[in-house]
Amino acid sequence: MRTIDWTDGDIVIVDQTVLPRELVTLRLHTVDELVAAIRRLSVRGAMALGVAGALGVALAAARARETGANVDAAVNHAAANLVRARPTAVNLGWGVGRAMAARGGGPEAILAAAMKVLADDIAANHAIGMRGAALLAGSRRLLTHCNAGGLAGVEEGTALAVIGALHAAYPLHEVYVCETRPLLQGARLTTWELARMGVPHRLIVDGAAAGLIVGGRVDAVVVGADRIAANGDVANKVGTLAHALAARRAGIRFVVAAPESTIDPRTACGSDIEIEERSAAEVLGFGGAATAAAGTLAANPAFDVTPADLVSAIVTEDRTIDPSRDAVVAAFAASR
Amino acid sequence: MRTIDWTDGDIVIVDQTVLPRELVTLRLHTVDELVAAIRRLSVRGAMALGVAGALGVALAAARARETGANVDAAVNHAAANLVRARPTAVNLGWGVGRAMAARGGGPEAILAAAMKVLADDIAANHAIGMRGAALLAGSRRLLTHCNAGGLAGVEEGTALAVIGALHAAYPLHEVYVCETRPLLQGARLTTWELARMGVPHRLIVDGAAAGLIVGGRVDAVVVGADRIAANGDVANKVGTLAHALAARRAGIRFVVAAPESTIDPRTACGSDIEIEERSAAEVLGFGGAATAAAGTLAANPAFDVTPADLVSAIVTEDRTIDPSRDAVVAAFAASR
Repeated sequence: MRTIDWTDGDIVIVDQTVLPRELVTLRLHTVDELVAAIRRLSVRGAMALGVAGALGVALAAARARETGANVDAAVNHAAANLVRARPTAVNLGWGVGRAMAARGGGPEAILAAAMKVLADDIAANHAIGMRGAALLAGSRRLLTHCNAGGLAGVEEGTALAVIGALHAAYPLHEVYVCETRPLLQGARLTTWELARMGVPHRLIVDGAAAGLIVGGRVDAVVVGADRIAANGDVANKVGTLAHALAARRAGIRFVVAAPESTIDPRTACGSDIEIEERSAAEVLGFGGAATAAAGTLAANPAFDVTPADLVSAIVTEDRTIDPSRDAVVAAFAASR
Repeated sequence: MRTIDWTDGDIVIVDQTVLPRELVTLRLHTVDELVAAIRRLSVRGAMALGVAGALGVALAAARARETGANVDAAVNHAAANLVRARPTAVNLGWGVGRAMAARGGGPEAILAAAMKVLADDIAANHAIGMRGAALLAGSRRLLTHCNAGGLAGVEEGTALAVIGALHAAYPLHEVYVCETRPLLQGARLTTWELARMGVPHRLIVDGAAAGLIVGGRVDAVVVGADRIAANGDVANKVGTLAHALAARRAGIRFVVAAPESTIDPRTACGSDIEIEERSAAEVLGFGGAATAAAGTLAANPAFDVTPADLVSAIVTEDRTIDPSRDAVVAAFAASR
């Protein structure tokens, strides 16, 4: 199953707003439909949004040709609308750019470029899974945070690609899934993916992770990343840092699985990463019900930064980095 | 305001099941009414339950005398019912025992013994607050977990007694309150208490604490305790350990505020403490709504254990202990 794909001239996506209740796929015929789907988070996750941006440009070109409209004007208009759909999603604009670079060749060339983005994502995810599984061979009890699964990419995802490859090699005993307050991506999406993969798992509240890790019930922690600085500091969903601290205390590995595109050479270290502050309402309520008294203030950082010295390894599609030993970007430059 | 008190021959409690929506006090005229209130968690928290047990025996004696029933038979019956109301609450049985020890003196002596339990709790909480505030003088930005406030005791509580005394000495800048999944005692109860105390505070998800602490936005962490082992290992609400790990990383103090009665000399160390595993339903849902797919398994440890070496100080009504230096029970024995 692909989170996003191209089928007979349309984009087809898994609607993530109705998971885990129902598995619904949506067929999107126009860029306006795609923009609306991106806005309401029916498609989400850095890698999936990159593919959505690229396929969106191809969709505009295909519709323009069918209706006899000007292809160049249509793709320019679509590109601007797509980037505006979620202005902070860097990968969305990156995917749009990849498709736009091919617009001189017309609709076929644009579609070919977009399908290359999709194929590259699938291949990168698969490579991350195999590399991470080789690194963690023998680990039978894992812990993960948020959703770094296929739903954030096209097929396998990153952290869940590692877990899937490990489970295929030798059945895992247990994967602890942190629910990931405030938006519960772990509870809603990761448990659903692991159930489909046939991987045994248990949901926990985020605060339970440290006790399980320090208590010896976890062999390794595997998470994704939103951005990795040049020195190896890792920004990921809020709550990740506590798991890294617990892993260090317990002497187990804390592994980050992420594509090379997540590494940002222009960000020297974690303190240079601006942490998005999201709405207080996410913290003050749950499923529409208020949890605290009216008027209560909240702080709601969306991410935290795990310092490089707590990261055992960063696994990408190209290499395995030990950021406590190697400067991440220097190692990257040397490998090219 | 007292969480539990004796008024004109009845027990009066703050009904914690309707907080923070409403402040409702309940007047309990019979032991059956008190047992029902304990069972539905209208009164909760180790210290408050100790007082409830003692006052419950006094209530039985008073009703028996009024109706001409046998006082001894009535208090024996009440004691058994009270202890059964929440069998794992050690303090409940302890409070019942304190009152029962006076039953030879009749209803007046029983009531006097129960009122001594209540007065001792108020005095101990106040002493903990003053001692903790002296220790943390100068700290303006604090972080706390769960509810170690007046609602868990009679008046001031433990961690919130420290926070209240600090704020009275010099206004605090901010108290970060962890919501404390799964049962949200921080969101529901601690924010309500801090608002009444006039202490500026912000609610956060539990996973946000480590990032704030390591990011330099917190001067000290103050929590309560459910049980302290002889070596200083601290069992407290699940989620506490991660804050202790973050505090160590940041080089700030992690302080446990608890009465001497929390120290259990028969428990050698944290690994001897059995961690209560609670219902999976608490993790799988939130305010009645399911968060994960039907059939998902969960793990739900109610507590975690913070190793003594991560605890900067244990503040009781009698002393300040540095458990990384002193064996807690040995120091206690020496101080007597």
